[in-house]
Amino acid sequence: VEDRLAVIDVGSNSFRLVVFTSTETWWKRTDEIHEPVRVGEGLDATGELQPEPMERALETLELYAHFCRATGIEHVRPVATSAIRDAGNQAAFLQAARERSGLEIEVLSGENEARYGYLAAVNSTTLSDGVVLDLGGGSMQLTRVSDRREASARSWPLGAVRMTERFLADGGRAKGKQVRALREHVASELASAPWLGEGGRLAGIGGTVRNLAAAVQLAADLPSYGVQGFRITRDALASLISDFEDMTPSERGKVAGIKSERGDLILAGALVIEAVMEAGGFSDLEATEAGLREGVFFESYLGDPPLFDDVRVATVHNLAAQYHADFAHTNHVARLALEMWDALAAHGVHGGDGEERELLWATAMLHDIGVAVDYDDHHKHSRYLILNAGLPGYSPREAALIGQAARYHRKGTPGLGEFAPLARDGDAAMLDRISAMVRLGEQLERSRDQAVSAADVQVENGRVELRLAATEDVTIARWAAERQGDLFRRAFGRELAVTA
Amino acid sequence: VEDRLAVIDVGSNSFRLVVFTSTETWWKRTDEIHEPVRVGEGLDATGELQPEPMERALETLELYAHFCRATGIEHVRPVATSAIRDAGNQAAFLQAARERSGLEIEVLSGENEARYGYLAAVNSTTLSDGVVLDLGGGSMQLTRVSDRREASARSWPLGAVRMTERFLADGGRAKGKQVRALREHVASELASAPWLGEGGRLAGIGGTVRNLAAAVQLAADLPSYGVQGFRITRDALASLISDFEDMTPSERGKVAGIKSERGDLILAGALVIEAVMEAGGFSDLEATEAGLREGVFFESYLGDPPLFDDVRVATVHNLAAQYHADFAHTNHVARLALEMWDALAAHGVHGGDGEERELLWATAMLHDIGVAVDYDDHHKHSRYLILNAGLPGYSPREAALIGQAARYHRKGTPGLGEFAPLARDGDAAMLDRISAMVRLGEQLERSRDQAVSAADVQVENGRVELRLAATEDVTIARWAAERQGDLFRRAFGRELAVTA
Repeated sequence: VEDRLAVIDVGSNSFRLVVFTSTETWWKRTDEIHEPVRVGEGLDATGELQPEPMERALETLELYAHFCRATGIEHVRPVATSAIRDAGNQAAFLQAARERSGLEIEVLSGENEARYGYLAAVNSTTLSDGVVLDLGGGSMQLTRVSDRREASARSWPLGAVRMTERFLADGGRAKGKQVRALREHVASELASAPWLGEGGRLAGIGGTVRNLAAAVQLAADLPSYGVQGFRITRDALASLISDFEDMTPSERGKVAGIKSERGDLILAGALVIEAVMEAGGFSDLEATEAGLREGVFFESYLGDPPLFDDVRVATVHNLAAQYHADFAHTNHVARLALEMWDALAAHGVHGGDGEERELLWATAMLHDIGVAVDYDDHHKHSRYLILNAGLPGYSPREAALIGQAARYHRKGTPGLGEFAPLARDGDAAMLDRISAMVRLGEQLERSRDQAVSAADVQVENGRVELRLAATEDVTIARWAAERQGDLFRRAFGRELAVTA
Repeated sequence: VEDRLAVIDVGSNSFRLVVFTSTETWWKRTDEIHEPVRVGEGLDATGELQPEPMERALETLELYAHFCRATGIEHVRPVATSAIRDAGNQAAFLQAARERSGLEIEVLSGENEARYGYLAAVNSTTLSDGVVLDLGGGSMQLTRVSDRREASARSWPLGAVRMTERFLADGGRAKGKQVRALREHVASELASAPWLGEGGRLAGIGGTVRNLAAAVQLAADLPSYGVQGFRITRDALASLISDFEDMTPSERGKVAGIKSERGDLILAGALVIEAVMEAGGFSDLEATEAGLREGVFFESYLGDPPLFDDVRVATVHNLAAQYHADFAHTNHVARLALEMWDALAAHGVHGGDGEERELLWATAMLHDIGVAVDYDDHHKHSRYLILNAGLPGYSPREAALIGQAARYHRKGTPGLGEFAPLARDGDAAMLDRISAMVRLGEQLERSRDQAVSAADVQVENGRVELRLAATEDVTIARWAAERQGDLFRRAFGRELAVTA
């Protein structure tokens, strides 16, 4: 049974309704309505929500309520952040919202907002120890994570809009004095969180982080399928900031990766992030595309604690289940491929690298999902789906390797293709090995009935022999596996023989 | 409930098991096992299936039977064509197949084979009157179609393998004398089918047709997402033939679009097709990717007659249903968009072209299917799915226009992009109009509850006014529609105003 939850994010700049659809085996965002409400317009000056922004907000909430009723969504979670939290006439707004739309909006405290950011980050990255940074327009939340649990959390009024208005309000190129003042202000505020410097990794959420990651990615001419898992180094951030300082806000909005409506805010946001990296001694920031809304969803979808046991495993299972993978088949291909890979490592035929083993497993589980697009060329469609769905918990390089290995699970000579700029030394050879293992596993499992229960690996005189264990005649599987001899030789430098 | 049918095509060169999965609302190929059995090896010389090919055939059938049992497929239709049909020891083979695999193979007569080709073609193209050509390795079937029904059908022993062995057996470059003899032979055989010349269009199925279509497409540097609906002109075919004549078989197999294992057969196949076009006076041949296996599936899936009422409508509904389109939403977007488009045509704002109207409908129905990949960038994913699934009944140009219009249903300035080489004069402007209409329909249907029941179109002084009919407050829909003013002006050269 599919369950649907609509999270309504009543934000300072824009309102967003996001629908999460889930079953026991998968979840995904299936719908979204974004409306640039700017409910906070005039709030800073007066301390109150103004009549026109409030009317826009109420119209939008009415639309969202209509949408939920029309599409039969029973579970609706409307949450408001800093603009509503700080408004003097908050109660009047909540009352009007209730009357006009029937929605009961929950105003999040800074701590609760931080908690949802933390849940989003630890369920979409492999962050175990370190800090989660959540930079919004009004406030910034930082959470210290220890063994995947919240250790400390705080919210500061250091959001990108607020910092821009306070330090860079004149709207031209930034002056050195302004930038110094902003940096000093943020640094002094952060001094109240000594736990920032206790080590670990730094993961970041929010539009500023996503835009900066996209800008670094594009400036480096890297292939881009979103910024999930992309790491912004301090050097790259510093170089971006130095470029921004010489630009007007509208010029910044034209930098590839930066949305035009964010041109005025991006410099202040980048400076705040740089100050956090400096205060905490972090050498890079890992971007994730999840955020507040995912945090709210995870809280309701997952048990207690609302944490996936293993984010990488959860990601792969989620994607496989979305495309109705035949788990009896893919699990068996994965098992055969991993057993052969392990045996080859034990015989010293390859190095037995742990990351390679994880990528091999993921590829085996996802190799066929492209059939959902079309049977023909489904290996290419699998790659498309893997790259475009994003793989929380994996870096862009790892996602590219899984995608390429899936692309080569049927035929062709594996290659890094457009992903070469992401690769490290040895990745092309690793791709050969992963592709060869998945292809062998797939060929041994052609009959889909797990007839080949195991493939014993013998290595003699530079020749690898696979002895198939089976309860039935598996002649065709043997022929099909032997036809992979060329790729096997390329990947492992050995001849391949397959016997029953 | 999903129903699955496995069609096993026991062909002369290769065996193929294809799984068709279907429900009441959609169908698709979901699995395939191909095995290059070459059961006909040695058959021509002896008139009998030889022991080794027969053993390969039986092993493969055993694998297929395992596969069907393991995956729980109850409906299996194994059909054999010319090799088994012509084998003197057919009965012994069928008996052995029954014992080893439990499969009861049906040997198709030439007429029945022609009928499945006909069903494949009329259910995957808009062919209503004309001829279906089905060229295999051993035989060629031609069917005269009148008002979508079979009027006449015949099978000739003019398959690509047979013609190659008889006229081009020496395997080098073709000699003028050989080519002339082949042409004369085919022409004299076709004289027995005077109905060939009774007009209409020509549609073709089979690997030779697909390879020739791909070669023409690639030689013309056209973007290629398969050859469904691609038309090979007689001039293009003649030019390809003249190139092939100067090449050895292995050189022909290296021509882009021609599979290497078909290099020896492609010239004879092309000459046979050219002779059919000449005899029937056809100026082009429309390729379709459907074939014998789809014909068998359609017979069981569709009622009596086994014909879709309208192939284009069936294609769009099939694709939409596969990706779980919200039909209440897409139907309403389609209705609003078509009503506005019709009214604008009535006011003389555009020409009211019938093809444009059909493409607008298809786009409105398919614009959101990309959500199946990921909500982010789902407009781009919709395009990917539309182009890669193939759209039987539409030409590559039409599929590209639908894909591009879906890509621009949310934002961006419509453009033909990589598809410009397929476009005709006026297509860029048509794409603007279709995108503008779908985007307006989508914005008016933001609440998903069909709150905007109609949009009355008034045209005055070069200004278009949409007056929304609604039972509730639709302020947001009005704002959202008005934000499309720029695209509307670009598409129709008029200002847009939206009132309630």
